[in-house]
Amino acid sequence: MDPDFGFPILSVNLLNHIGNTVRVSGWVQRVRRLGALTFVVVRDPAGLLQVAMDRTDERQDLTPESVVVIRGQVVKEPRAPGGVELRHPDIEVVSLVEDVVPINLYTPALAPHLNSLLDWRPLSLRHPSQRLIFRIQAALAQGFRESLREKDFVEVHTPKLIAAASEGGADVFPVKYFEKTAYLAQSPQLYKQMMVGVFGRVFEVGPVFRAEPHATSRHLSEYVSLDAEMGFIDNHRTVMGVLRHVLDVMLTVAAHHDGENSIEWPMVPDPIPSLHFSQALQLISKAWGEDLGKEPDLSPACERWLGEWAKARFGSDFLFVEGYPTSTRPFYTARDPEQPLYSNSFDLLFRGQEIVTGGQRLHRYPDYVAALAERGMSAQGLEGYLRAFQFGMPAHGGFAIGLERLTARLLGLSNIREASLFPRDRTRLTP
Amino acid sequence: MDPDFGFPILSVNLLNHIGNTVRVSGWVQRVRRLGALTFVVVRDPAGLLQVAMDRTDERQDLTPESVVVIRGQVVKEPRAPGGVELRHPDIEVVSLVEDVVPINLYTPALAPHLNSLLDWRPLSLRHPSQRLIFRIQAALAQGFRESLREKDFVEVHTPKLIAAASEGGADVFPVKYFEKTAYLAQSPQLYKQMMVGVFGRVFEVGPVFRAEPHATSRHLSEYVSLDAEMGFIDNHRTVMGVLRHVLDVMLTVAAHHDGENSIEWPMVPDPIPSLHFSQALQLISKAWGEDLGKEPDLSPACERWLGEWAKARFGSDFLFVEGYPTSTRPFYTARDPEQPLYSNSFDLLFRGQEIVTGGQRLHRYPDYVAALAERGMSAQGLEGYLRAFQFGMPAHGGFAIGLERLTARLLGLSNIREASLFPRDRTRLTP
Repeated sequence: MDPDFGFPILSVNLLNHIGNTVRVSGWVQRVRRLGALTFVVVRDPAGLLQVAMDRTDERQDLTPESVVVIRGQVVKEPRAPGGVELRHPDIEVVSLVEDVVPINLYTPALAPHLNSLLDWRPLSLRHPSQRLIFRIQAALAQGFRESLREKDFVEVHTPKLIAAASEGGADVFPVKYFEKTAYLAQSPQLYKQMMVGVFGRVFEVGPVFRAEPHATSRHLSEYVSLDAEMGFIDNHRTVMGVLRHVLDVMLTVAAHHDGENSIEWPMVPDPIPSLHFSQALQLISKAWGEDLGKEPDLSPACERWLGEWAKARFGSDFLFVEGYPTSTRPFYTARDPEQPLYSNSFDLLFRGQEIVTGGQRLHRYPDYVAALAERGMSAQGLEGYLRAFQFGMPAHGGFAIGLERLTARLLGLSNIREASLFPRDRTRLTP
Repeated sequence: MDPDFGFPILSVNLLNHIGNTVRVSGWVQRVRRLGALTFVVVRDPAGLLQVAMDRTDERQDLTPESVVVIRGQVVKEPRAPGGVELRHPDIEVVSLVEDVVPINLYTPALAPHLNSLLDWRPLSLRHPSQRLIFRIQAALAQGFRESLREKDFVEVHTPKLIAAASEGGADVFPVKYFEKTAYLAQSPQLYKQMMVGVFGRVFEVGPVFRAEPHATSRHLSEYVSLDAEMGFIDNHRTVMGVLRHVLDVMLTVAAHHDGENSIEWPMVPDPIPSLHFSQALQLISKAWGEDLGKEPDLSPACERWLGEWAKARFGSDFLFVEGYPTSTRPFYTARDPEQPLYSNSFDLLFRGQEIVTGGQRLHRYPDYVAALAERGMSAQGLEGYLRAFQFGMPAHGGFAIGLERLTARLLGLSNIREASLFPRDRTRLTP
């Protein structure tokens, strides 16, 4: 038999116990009086449950957020949350809350300003709207892993402490590492590529660190990156095909966690419509009546326009933009063999915002030597990485999804901080 | 239909393609000549495959570790690895290796000293013995997540950048965080506890950082911690029950990845035998003829002795030691209500080494205030954490498994660095 470890019955499962006396547990949410009866609404990890007692049995220690363990009889009650009610309860207060709860957790939407919610994070996260965000986030990560594992990808754990800011970076955090200085990895990029030489296909779910000096609604200084890298590809289009499949599974798994179906779940078209970078600029130039032909990248306004265009033209929330200029992409990016000023790279826009970056990488050692020389970059700090290419690497590529950004965009959250349990930015390091 | 994205056929699947012409790909491992024939042994992400050609078709560019893409006909050949062979091959060299491979990857065991293997990590990891270590490690993490998710645990991602070295710690890495100093989290302990107040049961798989000044064979300065924390428990015994179940699933999932059944997989007894800390000291004192009754902790020698004792007494590779002295455990540890000098904590020994630490935590705010005062600790830096307890927390507890240490102990690796893809210690920050 599958062990249950003696945990209390969850509110969602009470319907299976009608007529029985059970033990439930949770946080007191509200005490209501109705004639001779008193109702205690309790929030447990799964939802809400209602306890009914005679008003004469009422007690003073059922303050909001106090933790209670209740034994009682489960009775069908259509007017109660979940369609059941506990009667003849024996209530034990495990943790008594004596202070007034500073945030109203008991309205459908959380009213306070984001900064207050973040300051009171251990408390504000208890609100059902906040729990839903992070249940969906967990499901997205689960779908990412499951879809890739099923396609022979191996999970890896690469170091977050690195010797050099090797991706050519500003925006990197230095660490006092014994007698030396180390840096926090901005991405697992170089390591996941090396691991393609070992396992062929790999993925990683882990934190990355960016010393973003600007406070914007879409940047964090620590976030969770969902990384995949795969060898033996034809070109970046293989990667785009895998990404489409992965996203499809992620959204399917996540939709299962949206019990109330409160979210507008997007379809992932097969294939996702795709546009070359130069075509994208032409379209926008024409629409805006100005020449963007020389732009090296897409501005947020361009991305928004393309999002609307893809929705109108294809009914799609997703749009690939391929072939970003080689000069705007990192040194390891593979060129388009037909038009070397453009690269075999892509961004995936979701509702007008970039949520995934990816592409094909260089895989031959001499190409790395040339690419570094061309950009005036030193090979110092890259020795270990370059060795992988000296000793045989297949054509490969990959992508990285920002978990918080995807979550925020999917749920229509206006600030990425709402999609991070304990967000970090220039001014926020607590709680 | 399930998409295959155009990846080459993996060696393990060739048996399903006999008679067909297929595309395979991998690294040249060896070229052998036998009479008029030349055989090329290729290593792909799944294993080895053999290609046969006329000696007259032999070519010079099939150097070791060169990456090749081969089209050929699959033919049954019992003498070849996997029982099949590719004939009439059309071989394309995708990445030509011109240097001599500095490590012999083609013997059953890797001969070089650990330091050389680590210096050449992107290459030495390609050896089958190394790939197996990390495939098993990935499976252990997978089993950890699956077993907990199935028991209503929610995956969380807590910050690695924190404002204060809040667990009272030396051995913490400072980070230059814009104008401030941040620290790298030594564990997700305080955050996973706060999340019990939100989801009831949570887990996390992520890196933790310890500025271990000493070079030992069982410590790393960065490792992967498998953390679980659960509310509404009776006491630490609930946690031990969950841990037993999780380990059982982890080992079952991992054993499936040991294709050659080369590893001695331990049974996880139900329940795992358990010993009180004071009993453990009595047993060892008696066996060694010296009084260890006043020892505050178990030395590695004590743990080894207990491992042998559990094996002899119960035939078990696992042994719980419960009730460590309160004074040797962190401030958040719950006391044993019957004997408050001992705590509701445990270590799990596996083959005589601690691989899991866990226990019940305090859950009432006044108990935290008292515990900090008793230890002379300041609440500074703990404000956010303590708020969770001010506003109602259930009885809870949890555990943490060091993924590399478990992997190493399971596979009989003598140094924990062998169980980390890119290990970090006082002197090693590369590759």
